[in-house]
Amino acid sequence: MTSNPADRAYAEQQDAADPLAGFRDRFVSSPEALIYLDGNSLGPLAKATRQRIAEVVDREWGEGLVRSWHDWVELPTAAGDLLGQHLAGAAPGQIAVCDSTTVNLYKLAHAALDTRPGRDVLITDDDNFPTDRYVLAGVARQRGCELRLIHTDIDQGIGTGELAGALDDRVALVSLSHVAYRSGALADMDAITAQVHEAGALMLWDLCHAIGAVPVSLDAAGADLAIGCTYKYLNAGPGSPAFLYVRRELQDQLQQPVWGWFGQADQFAMGPGYEPAAGIGKFLTGTPNIIGTAAVQEGTKLLAEAGMDRLRAKSTGLTSLLIALAEEWLAPLGFTVATPRDPARRGGHVSLAHPDAHQISQALIREGVVPDYRTPGRLRLGPVPITTRFTEVWDAMAILRRLTLTKEYAAVGLEHTRVT
Amino acid sequence: MTSNPADRAYAEQQDAADPLAGFRDRFVSSPEALIYLDGNSLGPLAKATRQRIAEVVDREWGEGLVRSWHDWVELPTAAGDLLGQHLAGAAPGQIAVCDSTTVNLYKLAHAALDTRPGRDVLITDDDNFPTDRYVLAGVARQRGCELRLIHTDIDQGIGTGELAGALDDRVALVSLSHVAYRSGALADMDAITAQVHEAGALMLWDLCHAIGAVPVSLDAAGADLAIGCTYKYLNAGPGSPAFLYVRRELQDQLQQPVWGWFGQADQFAMGPGYEPAAGIGKFLTGTPNIIGTAAVQEGTKLLAEAGMDRLRAKSTGLTSLLIALAEEWLAPLGFTVATPRDPARRGGHVSLAHPDAHQISQALIREGVVPDYRTPGRLRLGPVPITTRFTEVWDAMAILRRLTLTKEYAAVGLEHTRVT
Repeated sequence: MTSNPADRAYAEQQDAADPLAGFRDRFVSSPEALIYLDGNSLGPLAKATRQRIAEVVDREWGEGLVRSWHDWVELPTAAGDLLGQHLAGAAPGQIAVCDSTTVNLYKLAHAALDTRPGRDVLITDDDNFPTDRYVLAGVARQRGCELRLIHTDIDQGIGTGELAGALDDRVALVSLSHVAYRSGALADMDAITAQVHEAGALMLWDLCHAIGAVPVSLDAAGADLAIGCTYKYLNAGPGSPAFLYVRRELQDQLQQPVWGWFGQADQFAMGPGYEPAAGIGKFLTGTPNIIGTAAVQEGTKLLAEAGMDRLRAKSTGLTSLLIALAEEWLAPLGFTVATPRDPARRGGHVSLAHPDAHQISQALIREGVVPDYRTPGRLRLGPVPITTRFTEVWDAMAILRRLTLTKEYAAVGLEHTRVT
Repeated sequence: MTSNPADRAYAEQQDAADPLAGFRDRFVSSPEALIYLDGNSLGPLAKATRQRIAEVVDREWGEGLVRSWHDWVELPTAAGDLLGQHLAGAAPGQIAVCDSTTVNLYKLAHAALDTRPGRDVLITDDDNFPTDRYVLAGVARQRGCELRLIHTDIDQGIGTGELAGALDDRVALVSLSHVAYRSGALADMDAITAQVHEAGALMLWDLCHAIGAVPVSLDAAGADLAIGCTYKYLNAGPGSPAFLYVRRELQDQLQQPVWGWFGQADQFAMGPGYEPAAGIGKFLTGTPNIIGTAAVQEGTKLLAEAGMDRLRAKSTGLTSLLIALAEEWLAPLGFTVATPRDPARRGGHVSLAHPDAHQISQALIREGVVPDYRTPGRLRLGPVPITTRFTEVWDAMAILRRLTLTKEYAAVGLEHTRVT
């Protein structure tokens, strides 16, 4: 037994004691021995998900044809309920799987503004994920509102302190990410939601980097609205549909701007005027992506089986090991940890700052380690809680140390990394 | 040789002479001997598409993981270019595959209004597909505009005559379906587009029931905007992504309201402000549905191989046989043909009106014939040009005749049909 993280036996011990170790075989593995640390961009493919997609394609579509709509039509809300129950702390009838995160944020931001007449300010932070800032800027422009950007430390994230000065009685909506996309900093959902309500505004949480990585309790936090994607920790595949949450008590008040036939009260009556469906269904728009929604259901089932608490415990174990090794091995080589060191203050991924991070990330890929790179100079490492081994984190850090120590990475050309 | 459609040998002759007959084996068949006449709701599964989906899932996602975004990022415009070249008469750089028809109409209607300051009227017809009417009503409400609904004959569709009285210098945008969803009536794209331009408005065509069923020449018609879905005649699967067309000369002027990171000029720079991409890329929003977009590409390739002219010739052959049998066999039983009789005036499907159409449609399904039902009292029959046999149309009509003649259908209960 060793308690020294720099000793590989330490990681081996943790693997041996990992209650989730068996889940690794439930996922497809790459032909090469890849260490995949980009689960926060695109999660891996589970065998059950591959099987479910094949069933939807071959049996439901191929054989059932149009008759399968009888069941498919309920899929967006069924998948949403499952996700709410196991991963988002939301009672049934408040989550729908639909559209993209971008489109869902657009719909909910407009809907929120409608409920706060006389208030003309939207708030987000200046380091929120680009699509969040862009969408809110677009909505603000459309509505003649002000988008107030709170300055945030890009490595430590946002707290009630940063928000306090920006809240006033002009604010209709505050929209923040629960886990920051670059640093992994975890915002205090309970405290911030309460603070925003105090100011009479609605609170929207972007759960893209949180859902499936940290336990989320939307109902308990009193959150009003939430959005999130499913291709990261939910492992639902490239461009799988996003989800949205609208607190039950708000559903009657809110009206979203994209009036599509899947949000219509009696869809197949095809009546003359738009009458929004009751409940969460009114936030749907057009024909839903069935293959992707089925994959969301499968991804959720697998995480539910693993258990969100166990996933979170393993995730903080993995990131703690990563940070310990970064401090011991990499700090002397010019790296700094650009993520909160307190596990309770971070999500499932870690950023390491280095001036040559972009080149280093490319060199790592050549060595069979997949991280990603984010400006400015951040190497982002996202172990997949349900599949990554502690020894993989250890080995990846050892490779990173060697590449930096020898400056081998300097010979590698830069390629524009296209990751989400 | 017989020239009498009521003789089954007539249909057999046409099958024998069908140059596209070989394509039927390139599609998955149902285990039961199904006559599928709902290709205008959900097209069948091609074996190549099944294979391509498995490749995207197993190899690109499962093994390639996030590295596959290197190629995926271009997929929405690559699929759009292919569709434009073979099916929509659009030069490259004008079509993107993205979002749903509903969301795309929403984006383009807003964008169109921006380019016509001082004009505050949107036009569609009162029998356009529900999502079209609803979306435009929602946009009109948001913008404080008027939505002008032109009254249309539900069986004969819309022409320049109906439109003439509604056009004036307040009109910013006219949005119509190229093929009417219920009757299959085909609008004159060239004449109507010219008429709308004469009035200084933009013209948007909904191609949902047209693309892959009739040759479309957007560039030649001078169309400004178009949208359409891909799960009908393009056979891309349930909820596959839609497409949008923006004429090249308009792309600089138009700005869509949903400012997402996939529409950003330099997406991965993640800069502070939204700067729309040049060209058609600015009309993208969030992370695209990759599996669905790959299926659109495969579906398009297959139709391109069959050839749009041959598909159209076969399609009109199938619907002409259907109408001939309806007139001979069904007219005496209370049916009327609710679709233009001139093949040049209709798309790929036919509606038959009967007071008991709903019950009859259910009875047909029990007999292994899949049609769909549309209010009011319309049995909608959509042969799939690339797979349906003339003898299948003949057999389906013979079954329909028997069910109606014997009134067997009256014993069948009604179930809410969920079809798109």
